[in-house]
Amino acid sequence: MTTNGLDSVGAEEMFDQDGAIFMGARRDPSDCQVGVFGVPYDGTTSFRPGTRFGPAAIREVSSGLETYCPQLDRDLDTLAYADLGALNIAYGAPEPVVQAVEQATARILALGLKPLMLGGEHSITSGAVAAVAREHPDLVLVQLDAHADLRQTWLGASHSHACAMRRCLEVLPSEDLLQIAIRSGTADEFSELHRSSRLVPLHQLHQRLSALRGRPIYLTVDLDWFDPAVMPGTGTPEPGGFTWPDFAALVDALQHHNLMAADVVELAPQLDPSGISSVLAAKVTRSLLLLMTQ
Amino acid sequence: MTTNGLDSVGAEEMFDQDGAIFMGARRDPSDCQVGVFGVPYDGTTSFRPGTRFGPAAIREVSSGLETYCPQLDRDLDTLAYADLGALNIAYGAPEPVVQAVEQATARILALGLKPLMLGGEHSITSGAVAAVAREHPDLVLVQLDAHADLRQTWLGASHSHACAMRRCLEVLPSEDLLQIAIRSGTADEFSELHRSSRLVPLHQLHQRLSALRGRPIYLTVDLDWFDPAVMPGTGTPEPGGFTWPDFAALVDALQHHNLMAADVVELAPQLDPSGISSVLAAKVTRSLLLLMTQ
Amino acid sequence: MTTNGLDSVGAEEMFDQDGAIFMGARRDPSDCQVGVFGVPYDGTTSFRPGTRFGPAAIREVSSGLETYCPQLDRDLDTLAYADLGALNIAYGAPEPVVQAVEQATARILALGLKPLMLGGEHSITSGAVAAVAREHPDLVLVQLDAHADLRQTWLGASHSHACAMRRCLEVLPSEDLLQIAIRSGTADEFSELHRSSRLVPLHQLHQRLSALRGRPIYLTVDLDWFDPAVMPGTGTPEPGGFTWPDFAALVDALQHHNLMAADVVELAPQLDPSGISSVLAAKVTRSLLLLMTQ
Amino acid sequence: MTTNGLDSVGAEEMFDQDGAIFMGARRDPSDCQVGVFGVPYDGTTSFRPGTRFGPAAIREVSSGLETYCPQLDRDLDTLAYADLGALNIAYGAPEPVVQAVEQATARILALGLKPLMLGGEHSITSGAVAAVAREHPDLVLVQLDAHADLRQTWLGASHSHACAMRRCLEVLPSEDLLQIAIRSGTADEFSELHRSSRLVPLHQLHQRLSALRGRPIYLTVDLDWFDPAVMPGTGTPEPGGFTWPDFAALVDALQHHNLMAADVVELAPQLDPSGISSVLAAKVTRSLLLLMTQ
Amino acid sequence: MTTNGLDSVGAEEMFDQDGAIFMGARRDPSDCQVGVFGVPYDGTTSFRPGTRFGPAAIREVSSGLETYCPQLDRDLDTLAYADLGALNIAYGAPEPVVQAVEQATARILALGLKPLMLGGEHSITSGAVAAVAREHPDLVLVQLDAHADLRQTWLGASHSHACAMRRCLEVLPSEDLLQIAIRSGTADEFSELHRSSRLVPLHQLHQRLSALRGRPIYLTVDLDWFDPAVMPGTGTPEPGGFTWPDFAALVDALQHHNLMAADVVELAPQLDPSGISSVLAAKVTRSLLLLMTQ
Amino acid sequence: MTTNGLDSVGAEEMFDQDGAIFMGARRDPSDCQVGVFGVPYDGTTSFRPGTRFGPAAIREVSSGLETYCPQLDRDLDTLAYADLGALNIAYGAPEPVVQAVEQATARILALGLKPLMLGGEHSITSGAVAAVAREHPDLVLVQLDAHADLRQTWLGASHSHACAMRRCLEVLPSEDLLQIAIRSGTADEFSELHRSSRLVPLHQLHQRLSALRGRPIYLTVDLDWFDPAVMPGTGTPEPGGFTWPDFAALVDALQHHNLMAADVVELAPQLDPSGISSVLAAKVTRSLLLLMTQ
Repeated sequence: MTTNGLDSVGAEEMFDQDGAIFMGARRDPSDCQVGVFGVPYDGTTSFRPGTRFGPAAIREVSSGLETYCPQLDRDLDTLAYADLGALNIAYGAPEPVVQAVEQATARILALGLKPLMLGGEHSITSGAVAAVAREHPDLVLVQLDAHADLRQTWLGASHSHACAMRRCLEVLPSEDLLQIAIRSGTADEFSELHRSSRLVPLHQLHQRLSALRGRPIYLTVDLDWFDPAVMPGTGTPEPGGFTWPDFAALVDALQHHNLMAADVVELAPQLDPSGISSVLAAKVTRSLLLLMTQ
Repeated sequence: MTTNGLDSVGAEEMFDQDGAIFMGARRDPSDCQVGVFGVPYDGTTSFRPGTRFGPAAIREVSSGLETYCPQLDRDLDTLAYADLGALNIAYGAPEPVVQAVEQATARILALGLKPLMLGGEHSITSGAVAAVAREHPDLVLVQLDAHADLRQTWLGASHSHACAMRRCLEVLPSEDLLQIAIRSGTADEFSELHRSSRLVPLHQLHQRLSALRGRPIYLTVDLDWFDPAVMPGTGTPEPGGFTWPDFAALVDALQHHNLMAADVVELAPQLDPSGISSVLAAKVTRSLLLLMTQ
Repeated sequence: MTTNGLDSVGAEEMFDQDGAIFMGARRDPSDCQVGVFGVPYDGTTSFRPGTRFGPAAIREVSSGLETYCPQLDRDLDTLAYADLGALNIAYGAPEPVVQAVEQATARILALGLKPLMLGGEHSITSGAVAAVAREHPDLVLVQLDAHADLRQTWLGASHSHACAMRRCLEVLPSEDLLQIAIRSGTADEFSELHRSSRLVPLHQLHQRLSALRGRPIYLTVDLDWFDPAVMPGTGTPEPGGFTWPDFAALVDALQHHNLMAADVVELAPQLDPSGISSVLAAKVTRSLLLLMTQ
Repeated sequence: MTTNGLDSVGAEEMFDQDGAIFMGARRDPSDCQVGVFGVPYDGTTSFRPGTRFGPAAIREVSSGLETYCPQLDRDLDTLAYADLGALNIAYGAPEPVVQAVEQATARILALGLKPLMLGGEHSITSGAVAAVAREHPDLVLVQLDAHADLRQTWLGASHSHACAMRRCLEVLPSEDLLQIAIRSGTADEFSELHRSSRLVPLHQLHQRLSALRGRPIYLTVDLDWFDPAVMPGTGTPEPGGFTWPDFAALVDALQHHNLMAADVVELAPQLDPSGISSVLAAKVTRSLLLLMTQ
Repeated sequence: MTTNGLDSVGAEEMFDQDGAIFMGARRDPSDCQVGVFGVPYDGTTSFRPGTRFGPAAIREVSSGLETYCPQLDRDLDTLAYADLGALNIAYGAPEPVVQAVEQATARILALGLKPLMLGGEHSITSGAVAAVAREHPDLVLVQLDAHADLRQTWLGASHSHACAMRRCLEVLPSEDLLQIAIRSGTADEFSELHRSSRLVPLHQLHQRLSALRGRPIYLTVDLDWFDPAVMPGTGTPEPGGFTWPDFAALVDALQHHNLMAADVVELAPQLDPSGISSVLAAKVTRSLLLLMTQ
Repeated sequence: MTTNGLDSVGAEEMFDQDGAIFMGARRDPSDCQVGVFGVPYDGTTSFRPGTRFGPAAIREVSSGLETYCPQLDRDLDTLAYADLGALNIAYGAPEPVVQAVEQATARILALGLKPLMLGGEHSITSGAVAAVAREHPDLVLVQLDAHADLRQTWLGASHSHACAMRRCLEVLPSEDLLQIAIRSGTADEFSELHRSSRLVPLHQLHQRLSALRGRPIYLTVDLDWFDPAVMPGTGTPEPGGFTWPDFAALVDALQHHNLMAADVVELAPQLDPSGISSVLAAKVTRSLLLLMTQ
């Protein structure tokens, strides 16, 4: 297990750097603005596992993209960001995994970096949100997802991917959660979505975000928000989703906000032999990197 | 071969219940509104076989969907429908298969259930249409399909999937067939489509259906109507097809009609290792179940 | 969730019978000799997950085999055995899964059936061994496996698949464990194997089993014992394994012993698109069924 | 549909030459010793279809092999053989397919060529055997197969692949059938195999063939005779099969016999994404071509 | 190596005709309007190879399409076009491949045919453009592509697929290049695109083409112009692309222009096991064939 | 592009360290005995490309193996070896690739390390052999391979994978080449093999190696030497190959020799979705590492 550059920041036990690295990233976090790390965990996945391979796949295909983004007219080549590697976790129960995520996120924040987490299943998000919200109590959580993820428990587990947002609400002081165009859930979940003001249709996105101008934002991208046509490699595909122009509109909307932290989760690359899911996830990651280094 | 619950209705020789069951369905048809059954047949498929695995795949992935449908705001959990299993058929010539489909459909109707058939290739539809049309002579047939399927014969066979609608017209007393946005066929088939008033562009769907208000409807969904991007797992993919919002518009249009019977055919799951085709077919099936139990 | 036949034996909450059934099996356990059940669990799998799909795959391909076995000259058609379906488990921590396995095995024994468990990952075996050993304290455990599985813990978990035999030894009063031709492990594990008399080369199999004549036997088949060429669909393939004639020799050796219980674990069918791994697992299961019904 | 060279021999309606060609073959059969043709049929396949793609796959991968065979020390480059293309067949019932095979084989014999048929499923063999046996009433049939294929009917069809040898016996005047090391069948089939002297263990092959010296031989190679490890791409894989050295031994044995006709059937290339099954089938075909041109 | 019909035109050394043929095409180019040929080359592909299999895949799936095109209301059955087979090339350095393409294109033009080339990687285009531009100095080049392909060199090679358009500009006297809706490139490439007037947004396509009425057009279709959802089988997929209706709009726009030559490149069929990419490429080829035979 | 640890040895331009690392290896070569490096090149591959992904695949699956080898009773954990990453190469012509390999090998030797190269196609071997032979003129080359690889040129290229051994002989002063159990080649190649004493049947391996005791050995492992059943993931699979026990016998034989350098080439991991080919290649690499650090 190699951990080049991490010994200087006391994180050498936390991460494993034996895998590939995201295009253009450094191992040493000094002078960087963003700290990318992977959480190869899919222990509570109930339907089709494999998101543990997500972080590695995103890194491997990233070199097939350009570093320049025409939409934002900015280039990764001019920026400094670190890829810290894979978080060391134990397989089995999710609670220690969520704890490890929280500690890693806190360490990254302590280093002065904005955390960008690559999953792994969605249950890991609450760990990262908890760490960021402790530093930024007015944090707003924006969720791209096909599913509401508001169950209290699922198949006997509370830290399940199907409960991801329920757990996040518990560690988010502001309880400000924007759930963008959710299209699947139980009758109870949709009843709650309609009662609260959390469900945001795409066409209200700009307006709803404007009201939050200046607040720190955590963006969690459950990749199954995208349509299965463009993102077949995910465990619980749901027909009727979104495509790149929809995501690009969100990127536009976020340009003038304070994107403090983010994650990209639920990529299961082995379900998609064509690899287009991994490429989409890498391009999403490139956009987030550029938004977080403005 | 197990056939739980069927012995009471005298159908124990007709179906095989050794396979998986559609989410939330019962084996015993008593008190049910809909009778789901599979026809694992692809004997006349000329290009890429595998639709025989369609019914099993739809059932297996169904548990990855929620039982609640936000569009219709209704929940399968509150409804009673039976999954009768797989129709027992002989491989080889299609004629005895079509006959077996007709007999099974008639038996299901006799039990007071609406038939919902999972294919299998499209040639099986004429058997089900024949049985339903005998009870409902004013039956209207609505076809979602990429292909006109109006050939008289194909590669020497009359009960070929390429002749599916031609055979249906022969057993449909009303000859009222709506072919929704067909996009592939021979010059002769398109000539016939344009001469008749059968070809219905998507934007005329509501209006054309309105004229048929009150009439019993049989909806046959050849899944290759969908674009190959969202439905790669079908034998004869045709670029330029439709996506979920288009199907959802049809579901909206059918809410106030009398959907008496339906089928979902031409899923070839092994052509799509990502499984998104099977999930789409299962979601289509969920919508049809909800429409047939209003 | 359907559970036909189980209500009469009070196990209707324990198993889910929505999936396919093993060829020739019944749902109702009355008058049966063997009770087959699946445990679709892979929560501690550290390398490549997917054994959760093993039980379903074994059942689905079983119909491609004949019911007659030329080696044993016996036919499943003449025997009575039940397929009780899938054990209901929670995803996440392994401990409750192992407990559920123990309770299910005890229930099956109480019904007068010999348990035959389909995995799932190897960590489930200790639950079944515990239940059988409680009734049969002189139980002998015979392990086919590529790996020693004798770690005390693995990646922070004690009920990991890498610790399967360590956990079994803790619940096996006799501590009589035969590890057949293990070919992978740590230096410590091999040191222990060589110190103890547990490691049994293939050519000593007959002789070592003979010494145990009359004792009840639990056979655990980790399918990665087979060579990756014949069993590519497993999470941790290890070159240099065995083929069908080697297994047939074991079947020969076991014909005159008291095979009281067995499991077939670590099939990860999605890793092998050809399906030959599932077919091999089904043929292994057929042999075990025939050995358990003599 | 192109049929170069066939117009001169009056077979232009019989074959389709739009596909790839076997390495080193000609289209024009003049002056050739062997006539290769494909039968892309899998209409009665009950388990996993796809043998219709077998002939094309064998041709496509053939260029990855050398034309020289070290075992026989002979080179295809020095020989003349024709690839006549794909037999035109109708999908659906098998009877007309078997008839078309018989007519095509007769035509090839009339041209002075030895027929070498690439399948497709095994049910086509009886058509070719019938044509050859009409010219050579003392024809001996040698079968490589995992399965006995002696059922009278299967799933309601008499010309099923599971009945292939039963149908062959009906058109083989000598009834001399050698079934090499069959390893799967019903109890009845094995009872018949043991009663008759047809079942030939591998070690008796040389001796049993010697007794037939001088007689014309038809060799039918059902590729599932090979072990699934080396031939995963077949519809009904059966563990415990054979490998290349076993086949090479048969080639040795046949060197001094009169191999008059042959077929290679049951390759389902899409089940094996690695392509090794197709390569093995092509190498088998190369050996047969060399044996038939001595 | 067979080359039917080519001996009469002196090209028998240039092409290999052992592979499959595009639907409805002839081998003999006499009296034909278009000459289709394949260039199975991917030697400079830096990310994911496999476009060498593109030409064969397009031909193989072409028979799954109808010969009639409803959009253009024209039928391939009424037209004469030749499929000359695969260009013989050496693997390794790209320069001799580009030269061979140029010679083959010149030969096809000399036969009075319009060339339609199936790739292969994009680096081959400059060879064909050079030959056409020598005969038609006012040739306009229209490029469908995700990438600008304007690098001077890439990974040390000048004839790389990443430099395809740079090389084309060098052999195109008019330097009239329309780059349709390019969405990926370096900062330098986009700077050049914006400086020049080459970048054509989709909505300006009709207008920009109108200004070129009467000029001979070479259309190069890099299939990664399409969205990865509809074209997953390409080496460098780029999210945010186009779908069939966008291409159909281009076909509409080209109906009244002089399409003199075309190519369809960058299909990597093995990356897409569903085959929808190959079908899309074949349908694109059908449209081009119809446009080139008006 | 990161190159940790290499700046100290002046090789930071030569290797790219953005990818995964072989289990247990270090990045910094100081104090190491072996220097592993990858050459992701498949530019001359004529049949099925993809060996460029070989080095990455070997590294990724290596963590699924134990570090301890029971055969040699030694453990990688106790040894020091470096993984220097991927050699930077240009795609296109093979000559500069072979040169880069030669320079990299020379640099590694200069650092006091034994080179262990992961391919990539076989044409790269001559570069490494040249560098080693310059330091060790009495170098013996031992080749595991299905193919003779003795062509002078292939498809117009001299540095083709089909000419690998011909090129090696040109840079090997001793011309001592042992070709172990070659099973495929042209008539000319086999004629040369039989004339020379290079072809070594497996049973003569020990004896032939004994005669070379004390001489430095370069072992090149073309993985297609193995049977396609255990190594489906290679470009040119050849039935009739070898399995793990055969390789283990070679390892035994080499224990008392001076293994100075080695390579493992022709793994094409994407052809084998099960991954067993990559695991076998990683286990081969583990054995070589242990042999080279004795």
